[in-house]
Amino acid sequence: MGVVASAPAKVILFGEHFVVYGEPAIVLAIDKRAYVKVETRNDKRIYARSANLNIAGYFEEGVFHPEKGGENARYKLEPVKTVVDKVFELAGRNAGLNIEIRSTVPVAAGLGSSAAVAAATALAVAKTLDIELAKEEVFRITYEAERVVHGTPSGVDPAIATFGGALLFQMDTGVKPLEAEMDIPLVIGDTQIQRSTRDLVAKVRRLREKFPAVIEPIMRSGRKIVLHAIEAIKQQDLETLGELVDINHGLLCAVGVSHEALERLISEARKAGALGAKLTGAGGGGCMIALTEHDKLDAVAEAIQRAGGIPYVARKTDVGARIEP
Amino acid sequence: MGVVASAPAKVILFGEHFVVYGEPAIVLAIDKRAYVKVETRNDKRIYARSANLNIAGYFEEGVFHPEKGGENARYKLEPVKTVVDKVFELAGRNAGLNIEIRSTVPVAAGLGSSAAVAAATALAVAKTLDIELAKEEVFRITYEAERVVHGTPSGVDPAIATFGGALLFQMDTGVKPLEAEMDIPLVIGDTQIQRSTRDLVAKVRRLREKFPAVIEPIMRSGRKIVLHAIEAIKQQDLETLGELVDINHGLLCAVGVSHEALERLISEARKAGALGAKLTGAGGGGCMIALTEHDKLDAVAEAIQRAGGIPYVARKTDVGARIEP
Repeated sequence: MGVVASAPAKVILFGEHFVVYGEPAIVLAIDKRAYVKVETRNDKRIYARSANLNIAGYFEEGVFHPEKGGENARYKLEPVKTVVDKVFELAGRNAGLNIEIRSTVPVAAGLGSSAAVAAATALAVAKTLDIELAKEEVFRITYEAERVVHGTPSGVDPAIATFGGALLFQMDTGVKPLEAEMDIPLVIGDTQIQRSTRDLVAKVRRLREKFPAVIEPIMRSGRKIVLHAIEAIKQQDLETLGELVDINHGLLCAVGVSHEALERLISEARKAGALGAKLTGAGGGGCMIALTEHDKLDAVAEAIQRAGGIPYVARKTDVGARIEP
Repeated sequence: MGVVASAPAKVILFGEHFVVYGEPAIVLAIDKRAYVKVETRNDKRIYARSANLNIAGYFEEGVFHPEKGGENARYKLEPVKTVVDKVFELAGRNAGLNIEIRSTVPVAAGLGSSAAVAAATALAVAKTLDIELAKEEVFRITYEAERVVHGTPSGVDPAIATFGGALLFQMDTGVKPLEAEMDIPLVIGDTQIQRSTRDLVAKVRRLREKFPAVIEPIMRSGRKIVLHAIEAIKQQDLETLGELVDINHGLLCAVGVSHEALERLISEARKAGALGAKLTGAGGGGCMIALTEHDKLDAVAEAIQRAGGIPYVARKTDVGARIEP
């Protein structure tokens, strides 16, 4: 039996990289979700496994025992353990648990996979212990788990995984929900090229330090794109949103964070009829997104696949973390 | 025997498109030249032919008689006739002439081929009639001939063809020579894709009208790139110039004037070791340039060829229009 909870992944629609310098970003929850099933055990072990990652192992008296995936399993399952501990604290008791993670979210692709797993785990473990978590508690616990993975997370991924929908994020004001009744159909294209977010952020910083007068107006342009986009989303104007997506991608090229594999997927997606396409997240590999009308989603997905990417048709979802019925 | 004169082609190093809105551009004369050989004839015909374009024909009493290339010959040779008439005017007499055009400049690629032909023709015809033209006269005659081809030319191509070297151009201040002792080695890659400059300029205008707050900072960034570039050229800093080339290309992508064929050549040139690469001119096809250290010129040219482009190794030249020894 057990309890199943889920939480959504995210894409950055506008503003990655520039966000580091105080500019706003728009982030969407998408209907790719992490599912976490929790059952109680008769012993005190916390047993966790992810079929997608092919890792498994258990925690017993604070010590991790890998069964599949070795050190990688420890690294990936540590945040799950953090979530469990936080929920035990809130519940005032603990239990042995089997935690099974299944995910439709590409991992290590900048789509917030780890936050989605953490949020779903929090809900499922709490329900198993017969306590109910407020959304704010899910957010806080997910944020704590993300600190284990990412050092100092921005809070975007935990917020999206918890609340769903669309968010406006800015460094100094944090996360704000964005009114977005509009359907935003996307194709995500995963280049499967590994990249270092740290290196890409450093690259932009170096350029900005060397050519401040050149790079600052680019970031100002990025801010204006976000303001225009908020308006386009209000007016449900997908075409304008697509134009802004294309411009934003050019700015990301200007600061040197694209990659030829991204360019290939983006170019093919546009030719197949996407309204706009850009890299999403850190760049240098990872994923691109193509804003695409419904009747062209299949064609764009096929074009991305032919160009060597893995396509995922996705759309904005307003469903945040929840217990599955 | 006859007289041979030549004049150089050009590349836009920085600032295309943005120049329309008053921003500065840097233009280089390159060592691809048009050669024009002029001999007198016993009759009064002005006979002209271009081996490269496979066109030929003659003017007799103001009427053009095509021999090869039909209407295309008339269209292409009309400006040559304009040049001849202007020189006859200055000389106070006329003559029958054989005019033979040989060119190492790719035509219709935004490299100023027609201005180079016009400037070389002016010098060669004048010499044949035993008059000497001041540089300013060569410029003026070339400008008049360009008006036949382009309607309202900016004056950049005639200035480069006449004076050579590097020029700073701005709409309201016109053409200014740029101190540039530096060697600037390039590989030009011709996509051979025809494009309409008019349509591309219109595309940028539409974006700018729809999203002024987004596009204006992009153009401001373009201006700052030119200012940085002037400094880098003074300091003979090819590496910095390459970085600026890459940023400028991103801005041109942002305003929507790149093309997948350009992206392919640019990406391959960068991978082969170019210090920077960008489209040059109108975009949407046409040519790209790769700023490249000497020892990598061959590798970059090969990479461009493998990617489907026609490569031309070129460098800045200070030799403007001249009579060939």
